[in-house]
Amino acid sequence: MSKHTYAGKAAIVGIGATEFSKDSGRSELRLALEACAAACDDAGISPSQVDGLSTFTMETNPESEIMRGLGIDELTHFSRIHFGGGAPCATIQYAAMAVATGVSDYVIAYRAFNERSGRRFGAGVQDRPAGATAEEAQFAWTSPFGLLTPASWVAMFATRMMHEYGVTSRDFGAVAVADRRHAANNPAAHFYGQPITIDDHQNSRWIIEPLHLLDCCQETDGGQAILVTSVERARDLKQPAVIIEAAAQGMADDQQMMRSFFRDSLVGLPEMGTCARQIWETSGLGPDDVKTAVLYDHFTPFVLAQLEEFGFCGRGEAKDFMANGNIEIGGRLPVNTHGGQLGEAYLHGMNGVAEGVRQVRGTSVNQVERAEHVLVTGGTGVPTSAVMLGADR
Amino acid sequence: MSKHTYAGKAAIVGIGATEFSKDSGRSELRLALEACAAACDDAGISPSQVDGLSTFTMETNPESEIMRGLGIDELTHFSRIHFGGGAPCATIQYAAMAVATGVSDYVIAYRAFNERSGRRFGAGVQDRPAGATAEEAQFAWTSPFGLLTPASWVAMFATRMMHEYGVTSRDFGAVAVADRRHAANNPAAHFYGQPITIDDHQNSRWIIEPLHLLDCCQETDGGQAILVTSVERARDLKQPAVIIEAAAQGMADDQQMMRSFFRDSLVGLPEMGTCARQIWETSGLGPDDVKTAVLYDHFTPFVLAQLEEFGFCGRGEAKDFMANGNIEIGGRLPVNTHGGQLGEAYLHGMNGVAEGVRQVRGTSVNQVERAEHVLVTGGTGVPTSAVMLGADR
Repeated sequence: MSKHTYAGKAAIVGIGATEFSKDSGRSELRLALEACAAACDDAGISPSQVDGLSTFTMETNPESEIMRGLGIDELTHFSRIHFGGGAPCATIQYAAMAVATGVSDYVIAYRAFNERSGRRFGAGVQDRPAGATAEEAQFAWTSPFGLLTPASWVAMFATRMMHEYGVTSRDFGAVAVADRRHAANNPAAHFYGQPITIDDHQNSRWIIEPLHLLDCCQETDGGQAILVTSVERARDLKQPAVIIEAAAQGMADDQQMMRSFFRDSLVGLPEMGTCARQIWETSGLGPDDVKTAVLYDHFTPFVLAQLEEFGFCGRGEAKDFMANGNIEIGGRLPVNTHGGQLGEAYLHGMNGVAEGVRQVRGTSVNQVERAEHVLVTGGTGVPTSAVMLGADR
Repeated sequence: MSKHTYAGKAAIVGIGATEFSKDSGRSELRLALEACAAACDDAGISPSQVDGLSTFTMETNPESEIMRGLGIDELTHFSRIHFGGGAPCATIQYAAMAVATGVSDYVIAYRAFNERSGRRFGAGVQDRPAGATAEEAQFAWTSPFGLLTPASWVAMFATRMMHEYGVTSRDFGAVAVADRRHAANNPAAHFYGQPITIDDHQNSRWIIEPLHLLDCCQETDGGQAILVTSVERARDLKQPAVIIEAAAQGMADDQQMMRSFFRDSLVGLPEMGTCARQIWETSGLGPDDVKTAVLYDHFTPFVLAQLEEFGFCGRGEAKDFMANGNIEIGGRLPVNTHGGQLGEAYLHGMNGVAEGVRQVRGTSVNQVERAEHVLVTGGTGVPTSAVMLGADR
């Protein structure tokens, strides 16, 4: 058992986002800059004070262009994390490491894209060049069998969960209903004012069995930025400090990109288990200490597996844990109180970090009482990350 | 003035490389795995003990494939750094941060490619798709004017150095002569046994004026891995611990990718200056403490600028500092004692980190006496990195 020593020494002091849309009408660089500037404004610092940036390898906006656009003279940290949506909480971890070890004073973690009006990630890999690299060659194991889209990959796991644990499509639907109920209260959400019923979910068209349309997240244009600094500096800024109590990356056991089909079991997310172990060890907390969580929901089935990996319930018990609105506001563990990626926006999970911050600050549109410790997770089925955010006591 | 608190807490304990060739005859993944396994063997640990990986965004071998190939069950750190050759020392910094903060026990930094038999980076960007992203759009400022290759970009800076400081092509040649003299003693070097004279340099064909062929680094197939752990663990392993005394990243003032042409001055490398300041502050050392350095040498002119940015001499004085063999073995500051990227291999600077380790261990083919502190730098003209390696006292 080891604790990460940067934990508790860094805090989130600003969050900033663009509007979430289907057609932003402007460049991805502009989206990123708007989000970064908004995060600085939220904290009450000048963008020129920023000296570190952390983002995804998939990000098209290089740190040098962010630097120029924000009017930053110098960066002493610029990190990236691979594997698409798995990275959001890792960007926070790296920012925390950089400020806690004295490398940078203010680090922005950012992600921005035109994922609806530009390149649509969910559209599949059939057009992906068959390059002779380890990165590309892996698709040869699955693409010839028609498994070409993220939805098709996740469907394999969902099918096995149904077979092994007796999970039903209605159980998956409970996640969508919760997300959309929360989004309905959130003016920033694409699906503001548009809750759904379980029947809506059941009646939505198949994307690929057993996944209905409403099991799948949106496609979004937008940007989100999160500003991190030391706890000491945080206390002098505009917002209450939101402490980074723990953070973790995880990659496990015969990992593939959303296609870890060759493991002994297909019903867990061992890479998220790796994160969970580190989060609990470092924070000294347990599931009972957490009253709300932001669980990555590009597809509903993996929300169940995350509840199990973090020990909110036993293996195979998530469907029962979620029953009776337990993951909705007012329940045992309201999940994705911003509406999640199904309800608010799909921003590779960065908007979920922002919601974690709002819950700790007490400013969520679906505020949970005593949300002193909020768990946020990164993308599922891929090498991933998680973070525990907490109040400054 | 601030010190990085991970410094002094992490050490390099293993280095491993493939042969350096022009046609490896095997995949980039295989090269990476061979190098990683060799680094573990050098340290006397099992590859399965590794739980962190750090590499370049340009690396084609994803961490998940390295994990599988090495027989690793779980990773708790997997980081990348953007901007090509600027990253080598940053991979070491991230590894040091991860082990010093308790995130991982053993982190391998790696880089492997078939850069001669496969994709040749120096061949130019004329075939690069004109994507509507900030990453691609930047080429629009220079490509229409025929500035299509790294050599053409560096030639602009070299020309200005000649104009402003009176540097001559023969001064650039002094770097090539030193590198090739050192490589001539190095059986691992491509140019083993093939020293050159300044006349050879002057008589080599133009690549683009004022750069001769012998001002430009090689193209190489190969892999290099560097294993990092805590100083405590390091002391129980096979090799003497090589302490990471300081490490830094730097991006500065209107940074572009090798094309920072819009700065007030074209004769410095302010991003390397950013690294230098951090390296000296964190290590508590100064230029006089350093008896040998590995300075990134994809093109000779920027070696001069690095000597000045680190304060080994004043601005514009590098040509005089280098005179009389001062950067060759036996001189004031032997540079690139492995032969550098001009003489040994072009591996995005990772082989330079390995040479820094050998100098501290006392096992270089061109060993420098009292090499207790060895400076290693990353790619020049791009956002970059540096590391100071030292003996365990």
